[in-house]
Amino acid sequence: MEESWVNSAERIGADLHLELSGPGGRRAALIRALRDAVRGGRLAPGTRLPPYRSLAADLGVARNTVADAYAELVAEGWLTARQGSGTRVADRMEPLRHAVHRPAEAPPRARGTRHDLRQGTPAASSFPRTAWLASYRRALQQAPSEVFGPGDPAGRRELREALTEYLARARGVRTEPDRIVICSGFAHALRLLFGQGGGGVLRGPLAVEAYGLGFHRELLAAAGVRTVPLPLDEDGARVDLLGRERGVLLTPAHQFPTGGPLHASRRSAVIDWARARDTVVLEDDYDGEFRYDRRPVGALQGLDPERVIHLGSVSKSLSPALRLGWMVLPQRYVGDVLAAKGDREAWASVPDQLGLADFIVSGGYDRHVRRMRQRYRARRDRLVAALAEHAPHVAVTGSGALTGVAVAGVSVTGVSVTGVSVTGVAAGLHAVLRLPPGTERATVEAAVRQGIALDGLAGFRHPETDMEAPDGLVVGYATPPEHAYGAALDALCGVLP
Amino acid sequence: MEESWVNSAERIGADLHLELSGPGGRRAALIRALRDAVRGGRLAPGTRLPPYRSLAADLGVARNTVADAYAELVAEGWLTARQGSGTRVADRMEPLRHAVHRPAEAPPRARGTRHDLRQGTPAASSFPRTAWLASYRRALQQAPSEVFGPGDPAGRRELREALTEYLARARGVRTEPDRIVICSGFAHALRLLFGQGGGGVLRGPLAVEAYGLGFHRELLAAAGVRTVPLPLDEDGARVDLLGRERGVLLTPAHQFPTGGPLHASRRSAVIDWARARDTVVLEDDYDGEFRYDRRPVGALQGLDPERVIHLGSVSKSLSPALRLGWMVLPQRYVGDVLAAKGDREAWASVPDQLGLADFIVSGGYDRHVRRMRQRYRARRDRLVAALAEHAPHVAVTGSGALTGVAVAGVSVTGVSVTGVSVTGVAAGLHAVLRLPPGTERATVEAAVRQGIALDGLAGFRHPETDMEAPDGLVVGYATPPEHAYGAALDALCGVLP
Repeated sequence: MEESWVNSAERIGADLHLELSGPGGRRAALIRALRDAVRGGRLAPGTRLPPYRSLAADLGVARNTVADAYAELVAEGWLTARQGSGTRVADRMEPLRHAVHRPAEAPPRARGTRHDLRQGTPAASSFPRTAWLASYRRALQQAPSEVFGPGDPAGRRELREALTEYLARARGVRTEPDRIVICSGFAHALRLLFGQGGGGVLRGPLAVEAYGLGFHRELLAAAGVRTVPLPLDEDGARVDLLGRERGVLLTPAHQFPTGGPLHASRRSAVIDWARARDTVVLEDDYDGEFRYDRRPVGALQGLDPERVIHLGSVSKSLSPALRLGWMVLPQRYVGDVLAAKGDREAWASVPDQLGLADFIVSGGYDRHVRRMRQRYRARRDRLVAALAEHAPHVAVTGSGALTGVAVAGVSVTGVSVTGVSVTGVAAGLHAVLRLPPGTERATVEAAVRQGIALDGLAGFRHPETDMEAPDGLVVGYATPPEHAYGAALDALCGVLP
Repeated sequence: MEESWVNSAERIGADLHLELSGPGGRRAALIRALRDAVRGGRLAPGTRLPPYRSLAADLGVARNTVADAYAELVAEGWLTARQGSGTRVADRMEPLRHAVHRPAEAPPRARGTRHDLRQGTPAASSFPRTAWLASYRRALQQAPSEVFGPGDPAGRRELREALTEYLARARGVRTEPDRIVICSGFAHALRLLFGQGGGGVLRGPLAVEAYGLGFHRELLAAAGVRTVPLPLDEDGARVDLLGRERGVLLTPAHQFPTGGPLHASRRSAVIDWARARDTVVLEDDYDGEFRYDRRPVGALQGLDPERVIHLGSVSKSLSPALRLGWMVLPQRYVGDVLAAKGDREAWASVPDQLGLADFIVSGGYDRHVRRMRQRYRARRDRLVAALAEHAPHVAVTGSGALTGVAVAGVSVTGVSVTGVSVTGVAAGLHAVLRLPPGTERATVEAAVRQGIALDGLAGFRHPETDMEAPDGLVVGYATPPEHAYGAALDALCGVLP
């Protein structure tokens, strides 16, 4: 092949399939064709290229076109040109090593599973495409040009104003637009607050609930923040045990994952602690909008906006794909958080921010949340009914079946712990199935064998807590598509002890 | 006021303007009304509330409605209920301290300026709203439901496939979709690569160009990465001075901010260094699409995809508001970068990713880039013409006025350095105006007094470099709106020495 190049310039076109087509004129086409030939290995390293005039004649182009193309490829390093040795393919062109194939579009969590009952994500098929598109289009058409320039690190004011009104109305949050900072979600908020290696707005040690998302603990550990576990009982986190920690991270509306709200006396107590110790409460309001049987629990933030950082997102209410969240900040942190964010780290897409602002103001967000609340409640009811049918001894905890106040799932009183009980079902997108002692691991393994993806309670446990370790399953009921939900419930019932 | 509450329950409605309107029934309305009254300070801490029956009669609602409302507000901590003392407004309700007012929508960079000639952002008014909306709508309507669920940390495959084709065609990048990771932009890419406090995929020390974006140096310093400055000359960064650094960060297509491309021999040399030392080259291809007079310079990555990490984004080509960028990775880094990203840190909006994929595949992106290239070239030409008219001694560097190869602006040969010269004008969204020695600071200050926002070269200088410090202005010509560009140029000429 190499010799044919040197000796038979006229064969190049045929040998290398140099097709001078495509945009940008003949020179650009020749550059592309030669580059492709080198890239694809048809022109091996060291191969000498024909003189300008030969290739020009062969291809029917001007000699300068070839000279320009060679010069460009020399400039880019694909070819080398040395006096007396002509133009050659550079030695250093390495072929592309092909990546190990990764499965294309299957979401990682669902790989190899038939029934996805993990907690944490809303019903993807319920995303309100038409309404969202309408808001997005309206917002983009009406926006001033400057929205496409560099952004305010706090986020678009339109969205902060819409959230101020919405959070006051729906969650009892007391704030104003200048105290809201838009971010990409809860994890981004934690990163902004705790920074890297202790240089953040806040510092540890941070008290956390003894059961919670391991991902959050890992993120805090990576930021150099020590977490101290607070035990849980039927009234929620034992905030009476708070001591010298510099802050506490809570899920007051719906303890994650065990399910109960923080008791009113504890709500007051944790605010008192924060005032007395000059510390701060981080409120993770991850699913505050979804409450089914009892009155909604307002945000803890409303009790003292100067002591509570309220964190929310659309990840549960709308979709995690939008990467939109918010931080409602005490006045004294606003400047530091904005400084941590920096002018250039606006992260959340500005068009999406404007779309969400319109979606809230136009009432689309409320309509969507109402619709989803009904849908998730129906799913919750079907879960409870399936369990009751499968195992008549199943107990649903709370002061009055489904209509009472669900208590935290980790310390159930008045229910036989030798059977299966359902807790934490008054709100949210998941329930906890309490299992007889010592059966959790075997049950999770049986589920995996049956193609059911779900988590045991053990995976949410803080490694340093000494509270009792109940056996249980965390069952997310939002993810399966509607047509597959019944089969998922059947499969679940089949693996229960 | 407090007494009136205790003694004259019938005056509550009038005194407190309790309006039982809005969504959610009378109980919800009463809760809202009472909460607002506490929040707004009309109900002071400690105030005793009237008995259920009094308020019920006054408002014409059932007694249970009032009881429920009180109970809810007690649960939320707004009210307290004690035996014998009745229901009172909780002591701990703090009034909201109002934020210091921040100017609403003025972008931080433009505050107090009449002419924004800073580098770094594209023309915001040129965002292709209609074409983008068409792509966004088409993408969202056609997308499968799973796009609204948890995402692939690598980013949507649709976008990675579109980028593979586009970057090969437009930038000579050799890759495949499984080696591309979508991120929020260059800063996010640096964070993913260098992690926090040395725990990243890559480690320092990292060689950088002696002139560059201070923001990038700060970000690396915050990640615990030491940067070592490489001097610049007319062929770009002195990569022959590379030694024991573990990597090098370059802007090969268009040195930022001085303006020239990295010479072909240096392109080869830096790849050789990376191979010999088993290190990596980070290619910041921040404005590779905008080249006006000479042939486009292909990406360095094409020389050796296993040694170069190619980083790009839409921040200059489309808008920084979208927060969309990409990393093209050597095979050996793909797993570590995805692990650093994690399942939950997908940052870039999935709908926007799908919109961009459609925008590229449908040809909208190419059309936009072509249009903007013409527009920026016209602006560049107007800048040069204005300078030539203002000061006939102005020299435009390069081997042949505007049509030749622009040399790096920091070491100009053959041009009088006692006057003003324009360099780095063959590409990009900014030019460098070389100034007579010792005049930069006074010129920048004069510009500020005239309401012109621009940067001097000094602000881009690595604090540890010992290369000569030329005087110059970095003039961005993309930002001013079309109608104001002429006035901006006049103002600029007016402050030149």
